[in-house]
Amino acid sequence: MLDTTAQQDTPSRLDPTRLQQLATEVYQSIGVPEQDAQLAADTLVQADLWGHQSHGLLRLAWYVARLKSGAMKAVTQTSLTVDAGAICVMDGHDGIGQVITRQAVDQAVARAKLHGVGVVSIRNSNHFGTCMYYTRIAAEQGCVMLLMSNAGPNMAPWGGLKKKIGTNPWSIAVPGGDYGPIVMDMANSGVARGKIYLANNRNEEIPPHWAVDAAGRPTTDPKAALEGFILPMAGHKGYVMGVMVDILSGVLSGSQFLDKVHGPYDPVNRSGAGHLMVALNVAAFQPLSEFHQKIDQYVRSLKDVPLAAGHEQVFYPGELEKQADAENRARGLALPADTVADVVRVAREAGVNSNLAQ
Amino acid sequence: MLDTTAQQDTPSRLDPTRLQQLATEVYQSIGVPEQDAQLAADTLVQADLWGHQSHGLLRLAWYVARLKSGAMKAVTQTSLTVDAGAICVMDGHDGIGQVITRQAVDQAVARAKLHGVGVVSIRNSNHFGTCMYYTRIAAEQGCVMLLMSNAGPNMAPWGGLKKKIGTNPWSIAVPGGDYGPIVMDMANSGVARGKIYLANNRNEEIPPHWAVDAAGRPTTDPKAALEGFILPMAGHKGYVMGVMVDILSGVLSGSQFLDKVHGPYDPVNRSGAGHLMVALNVAAFQPLSEFHQKIDQYVRSLKDVPLAAGHEQVFYPGELEKQADAENRARGLALPADTVADVVRVAREAGVNSNLAQ
Repeated sequence: MLDTTAQQDTPSRLDPTRLQQLATEVYQSIGVPEQDAQLAADTLVQADLWGHQSHGLLRLAWYVARLKSGAMKAVTQTSLTVDAGAICVMDGHDGIGQVITRQAVDQAVARAKLHGVGVVSIRNSNHFGTCMYYTRIAAEQGCVMLLMSNAGPNMAPWGGLKKKIGTNPWSIAVPGGDYGPIVMDMANSGVARGKIYLANNRNEEIPPHWAVDAAGRPTTDPKAALEGFILPMAGHKGYVMGVMVDILSGVLSGSQFLDKVHGPYDPVNRSGAGHLMVALNVAAFQPLSEFHQKIDQYVRSLKDVPLAAGHEQVFYPGELEKQADAENRARGLALPADTVADVVRVAREAGVNSNLAQ
Repeated sequence: MLDTTAQQDTPSRLDPTRLQQLATEVYQSIGVPEQDAQLAADTLVQADLWGHQSHGLLRLAWYVARLKSGAMKAVTQTSLTVDAGAICVMDGHDGIGQVITRQAVDQAVARAKLHGVGVVSIRNSNHFGTCMYYTRIAAEQGCVMLLMSNAGPNMAPWGGLKKKIGTNPWSIAVPGGDYGPIVMDMANSGVARGKIYLANNRNEEIPPHWAVDAAGRPTTDPKAALEGFILPMAGHKGYVMGVMVDILSGVLSGSQFLDKVHGPYDPVNRSGAGHLMVALNVAAFQPLSEFHQKIDQYVRSLKDVPLAAGHEQVFYPGELEKQADAENRARGLALPADTVADVVRVAREAGVNSNLAQ
């Protein structure tokens, strides 16, 4: 553990490149090939840069634990179980979710460029971090991309009291013009589980509509919430969406589903997570430049409205992340002291000199 | 108008076949070809059978007004602007949304059977009723289907005070085994606009989280809500989803988007609605019989949980509609008196003998 003085001294802003290099070295120290280690590290730092700290370096220790136990394999080797033109089924063989999913992006985009649409159904994968990391890459290449994943169970079916359904995130990214890609990324729970972990790490209370305790009572205690049930977003709608994402990710791919999927915070069990990725090549539908112009027009129209009290502007989907990324790259990342301490500990255990707590 | 006595005498249960025939004759009376009229009528009655009265015969008068004004063309003629293997772009040329979308289902399923995936991007269409009417048809043919549509604006962008975004519904249906298809169908507003119309027709108050009035204040008055802004579901998440559905439906297809789309309650303006339909042929991913078995196992697992207080069972997505359909087919449809009066009036104006108010 970092001592208290060191925590106090933690610089308020850390260099993201240095953090990415550190996480890369940690991954490499446990047998992850360099390129894969760089990717996995980048997904963590990028999540922090976007302001999604619940999916950032906070999770490095979890992934390391899974790699050390062998639940997630350090060397990722994918294969295609089905390889049929516009579609394929990819088997991740319990490799690193980030590496598997990044390969899937290339598969989906290549198939979309040939066939107008490319579909990759992915089995035996692992948690891959933030969905939008991958969908944005496709959008930069002129494709609309939809990506979804199932996850370890932490919500009960509507009306039930047993964890069966994951937060099951999904993202859509669309190529943009002057504004860059338009990006949606959300979970079907009222709140990402990672945000409750973060509140727990920070010893903060949570809003009462985020979760119920094990007996089904609303709670503001993140610990009780983690032992209970996260509530779906928008009531039964979030439940229904969670089920559909689980079926399309887990059942269609021939992977695991419902409570047979294990999450990234489980250090010993293979994940069984499945994903579904669909890429649409915009140029097959209309000239890409026209599409870019219309998206620019779209964003301008969205913003051209009278503002409600308490709002200074209308944001398009993904704009907040874009702004956070620019600011954090310029000023450095301000991470919670607990997260920094965790990273320092993991690095020390891996024999890597972190240089974060000088 | 039906007189009050007749309204009181409205039979509590009406024969759905008779209602479907009546609506068919109404459509035919204004120039809709018989087969198209039967389809359009069936989508309305089926919505009522599923218990979705906001999308049922309540809307017959709206569609008739649009047909009479020429905003929606009675004779639907579609063409393919792009016809390229797994994908196509269909132009509906302002025909009847239900007819266009039913044709798109056949296009998407046929392409999916050939290529594993079939995508139909639809422009210059009209409101097509309930999404799940179409996705279920594909599921019965062994395909997963995703369908989404944009719609006339009735929500403001998050933080804004001008209607820009429709409720923009979307549905996913998945082939099922013993239980039949698993079906999700939802709008991105907290409530379907039709439900506010229905409350207005019934002179009922609405919950305060459904909508705000024109000044942005929460309201329980359906009239004030119809003049104000419907709130998105799950706060900003519903806003973001509404935008993405609009872009994928309206921008990708080359149709209209944001406040340039006109809804079915607008009698004079062409709609400009666009849709996106994606079909995945399950058999291209895994044997369909195995998939059916897994879905059966999925539903049993969902239901195999302790129940929360106030719940008698866990429902899988689409089960409530399936139960309502079975009950309403057996017992007849119980429609609100105002809806029946509207149908009788529309029929009389069309010169069709309704026989509903004997």
